[in-house]
Amino acid sequence: MTEPFNAVDVIVAKRDGRALSGPQIDWVIDAYTRGVVADEQMSALAMAILLRGMKREEIRRWTAAMLASGDRLDFSDLGKQTVDKHSTGGVGDKITLPLAPLVSVFGVAVPQLSGRGLGHTGGTLDKLESIPGWRASVTNAQMKDQLRDVGAVICAAGSGLAPADKKLYALRDVTGTVESIPLIASSIMSKKIAEGTAALVLDVKVGSGAFKRDIHEAAELAETLIDLGVAAGVDTSALITDMSTPLGRAIGNANEVTESVEVLAGGGPSDVIELTVELAREMLAGAGIRDVDPSAALADGRAMDQWRRMIRAQGGDPDAPMPVAPHVEELRAHRDGVIGRMDALGVGIAAWRLGAGRARKEDAVEASAGIYLHKTFGEPVKRGDVIMTLHTETPNRMQGALDALAEAHGGEGAVHISTEASRGPIVLQRLRTHE
Amino acid sequence: MTEPFNAVDVIVAKRDGRALSGPQIDWVIDAYTRGVVADEQMSALAMAILLRGMKREEIRRWTAAMLASGDRLDFSDLGKQTVDKHSTGGVGDKITLPLAPLVSVFGVAVPQLSGRGLGHTGGTLDKLESIPGWRASVTNAQMKDQLRDVGAVICAAGSGLAPADKKLYALRDVTGTVESIPLIASSIMSKKIAEGTAALVLDVKVGSGAFKRDIHEAAELAETLIDLGVAAGVDTSALITDMSTPLGRAIGNANEVTESVEVLAGGGPSDVIELTVELAREMLAGAGIRDVDPSAALADGRAMDQWRRMIRAQGGDPDAPMPVAPHVEELRAHRDGVIGRMDALGVGIAAWRLGAGRARKEDAVEASAGIYLHKTFGEPVKRGDVIMTLHTETPNRMQGALDALAEAHGGEGAVHISTEASRGPIVLQRLRTHE
Repeated sequence: MTEPFNAVDVIVAKRDGRALSGPQIDWVIDAYTRGVVADEQMSALAMAILLRGMKREEIRRWTAAMLASGDRLDFSDLGKQTVDKHSTGGVGDKITLPLAPLVSVFGVAVPQLSGRGLGHTGGTLDKLESIPGWRASVTNAQMKDQLRDVGAVICAAGSGLAPADKKLYALRDVTGTVESIPLIASSIMSKKIAEGTAALVLDVKVGSGAFKRDIHEAAELAETLIDLGVAAGVDTSALITDMSTPLGRAIGNANEVTESVEVLAGGGPSDVIELTVELAREMLAGAGIRDVDPSAALADGRAMDQWRRMIRAQGGDPDAPMPVAPHVEELRAHRDGVIGRMDALGVGIAAWRLGAGRARKEDAVEASAGIYLHKTFGEPVKRGDVIMTLHTETPNRMQGALDALAEAHGGEGAVHISTEASRGPIVLQRLRTHE
Repeated sequence: MTEPFNAVDVIVAKRDGRALSGPQIDWVIDAYTRGVVADEQMSALAMAILLRGMKREEIRRWTAAMLASGDRLDFSDLGKQTVDKHSTGGVGDKITLPLAPLVSVFGVAVPQLSGRGLGHTGGTLDKLESIPGWRASVTNAQMKDQLRDVGAVICAAGSGLAPADKKLYALRDVTGTVESIPLIASSIMSKKIAEGTAALVLDVKVGSGAFKRDIHEAAELAETLIDLGVAAGVDTSALITDMSTPLGRAIGNANEVTESVEVLAGGGPSDVIELTVELAREMLAGAGIRDVDPSAALADGRAMDQWRRMIRAQGGDPDAPMPVAPHVEELRAHRDGVIGRMDALGVGIAAWRLGAGRARKEDAVEASAGIYLHKTFGEPVKRGDVIMTLHTETPNRMQGALDALAEAHGGEGAVHISTEASRGPIVLQRLRTHE
C-alpha cells in the first residue's frame, strides 16, 4: 500500500462536483501512466470531468502532470526564435503546409509536431504522406538539426512526449469523453508545451466543420488554451476563425498538398492565402518580428524554396507527380444562382467516406481520395456547371459520400444555390494577439 | 459489423441527457455481458447514468435486460406461496437470520438469496459462515428441495442469475459509480426477480449507517424498487426503517448469529424483535396470511425448530460453540447519563476495521471480530460502566477501530452521553403495504 491516493476517492470527488487537489491530479495521471489506475477508472473520471468541469487551476495542474509524464524538448540553444501554430481542426485546413516554410523564411524556427486525422477533420501528416518518400518520423536530434539547417519541420510527435496524453486520448476516443474543454485543452497544450516552442499561435475554428459551432464556446476554449500556455511560459495567442465552409477548394490529402503548393507558388484560393498570411504575421510577431510582409515571400518564391528544402530533408520528392484517384463523380448545379451554402461538415464527412479519413486509428487513408470544389461559397454558378468533383480509389465508397452530401445540414444538403451570398472575414476574433 | 449499435453513441446519448431507447439498453447490457462493450465503456456509461439519471421506463428496461442475461428460477410448482425480504443494508442488521425460519413456520417458502458484506455493512452469508459446517452454495435443485422440505433457505445466488449484474456490480465498485438509484435499484431487483419469489418485502434503511441518510431519498429508492418489482409481476412492498443506530447489541458475524438465536429463543434485544416481527407480518401478508401472530412462534420454539432444520440442511451444526476472538478492548462511560448517540456508521466502520468486514471482495472476514454494545441508544449509564466491547483476531486492527469510533459523527465521536434520549419507532414509513 505505497500509493498515496485511491482511484475511487478521486473519481468520487470529481463526480460529486469537488475540485481535485494538485497532489490528487499528479497522482492520478502518473498512476494511470503506470497502469495502477485502470482504463475503466480513468474513463469514469473522464466522464465526471466532462459533466462536472474543472477549474482553471485544476486544468493547469492536469496539463503539467501530463507534461511531466514524458520528455520535454529544449530548443533554447538553437540560436533562433521558435514559434509554432496549432489548429483545432477543420475541413480543407492545409494551412500548416504553406505556413511553416513561409514563417521559416524570416529566420524563425517552426517545430511543428502534427497529428493524423480522425473523424471528418484531416490530419497534416496524412496529407504530407501523399508525397512520395516523405517520412513523418524523425528523431529529436534530427528535428533539431532540421530546425537549425532548414528552419521548419513538420513531423510526428515522438512517443516520449506526454505519453499520458497518448494513452488518455485513445481512451477518450472510445468512451464518449472527447468533447470536454478541460480534457481537450490539456491534451493540446501538454503536447505543445512538451514540443519546446517559445511562442504559439492557436487557430481555434468555429462553425459546422469545427469541434465548436458557437463562437462563445470557441472563445472559452481559446481562453483556456492561452491560460495553459502562458502558465507554462509559452507566449500564446489565438485567432478564432471561420469553419462554416471548407478552407480552399481541395479537401483530401494529395489534393491539399497540390493546393498548398499553388499558394507557395504565389497563387491558390484567396481564403487559404488570407489565413496563411494572417497566421504568419501573428507567428512572426510572437517571435518579435513585425516589419516584414509574408505575402512578398509567397510571391517571390522564398517560401517555395523553404518548402522544397523541408520536404527533401524528410526524404520527400517535391517534384514527384501526386497520385490521382481513378474513380470520379461530378456534382452539377441544377439552376443558376450563387452558392449560398457549402457546408463544411457535410463536405468533410463526404471526403472522409471517400477514403481521405479513417474510421479507426489503425486504418490507412487513401492519398488521392477527396473532393475538389470548382465552385464554393459566394461564387456564381450556371445551371449544369460542375460544382464539385468527388475522387476515390474504392468505387463502393462513392454512394456513401453522395449520401453524406445529401443528408448534411439537417437533411437540406451540403450545397444550396441561392440568389446572393458573400463571404465574410476568415478571422472572426483575436485573443491576446502578439501584434 | 453485425452489432446494431455503437457503444460510443449510447454513452454520448446518456452523457448529453437523453433517454436511452429500449433496443439500446437491451444491446448495451447484452454486448457488455459478451465482452463486446468494454469495461472502460461501461464505466463511462455508468458515470453518465449516475450524473444524468434514468427515467422509470429506462430503469425497467435496464432491469429486464439484466434479468434476461441469465436464468430465472421458477417455484410456481412448489405448492407453497413464496415470499422474500431484501434489506438495503445496515449495521447489526441480522434480521434475515431469525426472519426466514419464522416466516416458514406458517407454511410459506422463503427463497432468500443473500450476499456478502462490502464496506461497513455486513453480509448475511458472512454471518452464517461462522457456524461450523454451514455452506452458502446450494444447487438450484437443492434449493427447491429445501424450500419444499424445510420451507426456508438462505444461500448464495448461483452464477447463472443475472450475470450482467454480477459483472457490472464489480465494475461499479472500483469506478465510483455505486451510488446511483437507477443502478442500485436495477441491481437489487434483477436478482430478486430472477430468484423466482412471488412476493417481496423491502427493508429500505435510512440513517447514518445506511446508504441513504435522507428519508426522501430512501423513499425515492423504495418507490423505484417497488415499481420494478410490480412491473415484473412480483408483489412488492417496502418498509423504510431507522438505521441511525445499530440494530441490536451485536455487530459482527458470529456474535450476530448468537443474537439471532436469542431472538429465536424468545429473547434478544427489543429492536431486533420488533423489526423481525414487523417484517414477518408484512411477508405473511404478501403470502395472503393475515390472522397469525409471529411473536407466538418466537415464544413457543416453532421458529427455533425451523432455524435448526434450515442450518442442518446446509451442513451446519446449530449446537456447535461459536468462535471467540482473543483480543478484547472495552470502552467505558466517562460520566453518568443516557446514551444520546450511538452512531451506526461509526460503529459499523469500527467493526469493519476489527475484521468483521472486508476491504476488497477477495478478502476473508474474521468470524469472531466485532462489537458488542452493553449499552445502546437511549439506555442509562453510570460513570465507569462498559459501553461496548471490541473483539478482533488481529491485535493490530484494534487501534484503527478505536480511531473510527473517535472520528465518527464529524469528529465528535460515535458515542455521546447526554441527559436524556429515547428511541423512536424502527419502522418510519410503509409503502404499498400488503397488510
